[in-house]
Amino acid sequence: MAAVEIIARKRAGEKLSRADLQAFVTGAAEGGWPGEQLAAMLMAIAVVGLDAEETGWLVAEMAGSGRRISPDRFDRPAVDKHSTGGVGDKASLVVAPLAAACGVDVPMISGRGLGHTGGTLDKLESIPGFRVGLSVDELVEVVRAAGCAICGAGDEMAPADAVLYALRDATATVDSVPLICGSILSKKLAEGISALVLDVKCGAGAVFSDPADANTLARALVDSGTASGLLTVAVVTDMAVPLGRAVGNAVEVVEAIECLQGGGPEDLRELSVHLVARMLLAGGVCDEMENAVTLVSRALDGGAGLERFERMLVAQGGDARVVDEPERLGRASGMRTVEADRDGWLSGLDALQIGRSVARLGGAGGRGDGKLDLLAGIRILVPVGVRVAAGDALLELQSADVERLDPAAELAGAAVTITDDPGVPRRLVLGTIGTESPVESDS
Amino acid sequence: MAAVEIIARKRAGEKLSRADLQAFVTGAAEGGWPGEQLAAMLMAIAVVGLDAEETGWLVAEMAGSGRRISPDRFDRPAVDKHSTGGVGDKASLVVAPLAAACGVDVPMISGRGLGHTGGTLDKLESIPGFRVGLSVDELVEVVRAAGCAICGAGDEMAPADAVLYALRDATATVDSVPLICGSILSKKLAEGISALVLDVKCGAGAVFSDPADANTLARALVDSGTASGLLTVAVVTDMAVPLGRAVGNAVEVVEAIECLQGGGPEDLRELSVHLVARMLLAGGVCDEMENAVTLVSRALDGGAGLERFERMLVAQGGDARVVDEPERLGRASGMRTVEADRDGWLSGLDALQIGRSVARLGGAGGRGDGKLDLLAGIRILVPVGVRVAAGDALLELQSADVERLDPAAELAGAAVTITDDPGVPRRLVLGTIGTESPVESDS
Repeated sequence: MAAVEIIARKRAGEKLSRADLQAFVTGAAEGGWPGEQLAAMLMAIAVVGLDAEETGWLVAEMAGSGRRISPDRFDRPAVDKHSTGGVGDKASLVVAPLAAACGVDVPMISGRGLGHTGGTLDKLESIPGFRVGLSVDELVEVVRAAGCAICGAGDEMAPADAVLYALRDATATVDSVPLICGSILSKKLAEGISALVLDVKCGAGAVFSDPADANTLARALVDSGTASGLLTVAVVTDMAVPLGRAVGNAVEVVEAIECLQGGGPEDLRELSVHLVARMLLAGGVCDEMENAVTLVSRALDGGAGLERFERMLVAQGGDARVVDEPERLGRASGMRTVEADRDGWLSGLDALQIGRSVARLGGAGGRGDGKLDLLAGIRILVPVGVRVAAGDALLELQSADVERLDPAAELAGAAVTITDDPGVPRRLVLGTIGTESPVESDS
Repeated sequence: MAAVEIIARKRAGEKLSRADLQAFVTGAAEGGWPGEQLAAMLMAIAVVGLDAEETGWLVAEMAGSGRRISPDRFDRPAVDKHSTGGVGDKASLVVAPLAAACGVDVPMISGRGLGHTGGTLDKLESIPGFRVGLSVDELVEVVRAAGCAICGAGDEMAPADAVLYALRDATATVDSVPLICGSILSKKLAEGISALVLDVKCGAGAVFSDPADANTLARALVDSGTASGLLTVAVVTDMAVPLGRAVGNAVEVVEAIECLQGGGPEDLRELSVHLVARMLLAGGVCDEMENAVTLVSRALDGGAGLERFERMLVAQGGDARVVDEPERLGRASGMRTVEADRDGWLSGLDALQIGRSVARLGGAGGRGDGKLDLLAGIRILVPVGVRVAAGDALLELQSADVERLDPAAELAGAAVTITDDPGVPRRLVLGTIGTESPVESDS
């Protein structure tokens, strides 16, 4: 069927067939559909929607547009975790090796930062020598050597996604739920995994700040992941404030290593342990959450996760000495602090504003064009929820370009909320979708 | 505001500002928006819609994207007629000179055929020497010499429309009401006219076959035309069966000349007189419909319309001898008749199928690329509503390419409906929108 007829049918609200979605995806991957027709189809999908079956077909066709790893290439259950993107979210750097230490293989395809959110690949590139560009066969080799690998999709896996993602960014269709499902799940399906744990972020620094929207996305991801043959679980977690105490690239790697050493900020540890425990349940390594949490906590405190992290660094060409000598990551020359302007409780730190400030510093929003300042970032000196006095240093901004410090400090200052009362304590895990009980509320 | 933000706001259902629509139209006309963003915006408009005020701004900005003729360049009231497109619709060839003969100037910008519908410019090009490509200044000169002119928009007038029209065709957004309004009215506004009579076609051979959809389009055209400062009236007319007895290019010119000579098919004469009478009312030349119809009928029968037609041919380089010697238009070498396959009443002749058959013959659907066979066409030998006997010749197909005759005859044969009873008599004018009484039903 001609492209224009398929677009017309979606515009008119009709359900597409698998053959229609195959034509669209092939048209994107192989160039048969011009950009204008792809853009019109993306907008029609964004406004009209796709149902769960159509979304499942989109996922499968996007995964099938490139190479898919055969599950039998892994010795252990292959399970992955994916986050919808946040500010200060370095959990992947902890989760992948920690899960590997606990008995599952993690062939993690990750992405670049976009807009105000950070990207795992950008963070890893702050480690001297680390190669995020692996071929499919190299990815399998690294997993076999270290139990985990983190790399980009390259041009072998789900090539349709790269084309469609660039168009979505230009056509205001980034936050379309079925298109998000297609983008995320196609790459995960190509990894050859059997189960997937999704961390759906919710709050100012996430794609969706409204919990209802985040739940809709989580439900759609679980349904279309399941329809694609993946055991899929989604955890909805807070992204009103940044995760941990560091936002940027090198500064986040340092914090992830601290976590793998048994230290680091409490929220990063809690989230990482929770997500890995879910992965072990999904991969069939554990039967219940409580046992899984105990197993993961022991692996973290015993250094088994850190050991896997070091093996992954070596296998991907990175300088593993950064684990004991974080100064090898370097340090930005310019620095500026943001102070409290009054006495009170530090009750809020807006993740979106902090993310924008880091982008202003040069540490995000660069789209992998090599123009990121990997040393730029923000250290959060005082955690949300404590009492502060006027003049206390709250944030430390770093950038190689001192011209960027003033405008970035202004954005970061706007993120700070100081009130007369301590505010509501933060809940990190807001809910879980896709476990035995359809919607389970965690505390 | 960035393109992606404007697209995002329309996608989210927000009302756009005039500045937003200006950015979009300028982006189309000057190339500042890439095709992908224009396509996404077209689809967002097609699905979400534009309200009357937004549509008025779209029209004004599209008209303002190129040259606009100043109304004071015409000596008489300047009024135009525009049809939304049909099969066998050669009314413009009669209406423009007839209106000119009755006291108004008609600077008519017209278009090419598209799909199964014919285009006035294609028809006129079957006249040896006739130039449809006039500059804006030439258009004004021809109107001053003949009282009317029919030509293409060229690249001076409403250039944004040419860009957007090509994209709409590729992105399944051709039948979006606000986009149709933008396309039609922007060119009309650029003509420097004060009033406009729209012939909104309804039926199998029209953009909309459902009367409710045709009424919606007519209402939107009248509202946005009025908002743009044009006195606008819409007449909804039948396009279930072709207009007149000839469908094609040269064959339609012959029929239009017959009408201007006081003969020709009754429906073409009735529609032309009605539309010109509406133009005289809209232009302030007459006060009431009855007087106007009398005036127009006299001008037609007295040859005043034909005389204006000849002046227009001469002024646009055409061979005016075709009026008395229609054989100068040529005649296709190949011919085939379609016969009645049973006795009964010829109760239907599907305009869409006839249009497709003409396209198959090579006489439509060529998009002005010079590949049309201007002599190809169909003559309707027996009018709808009469009794026929098995074996009676109903249609005569003509094409220079004899290979095309068989498949075209099959399409044309499928258009024919013969029944045991005569069926419902055809109503030509179905309704009028935009006169003093908001919705007036004509008989």
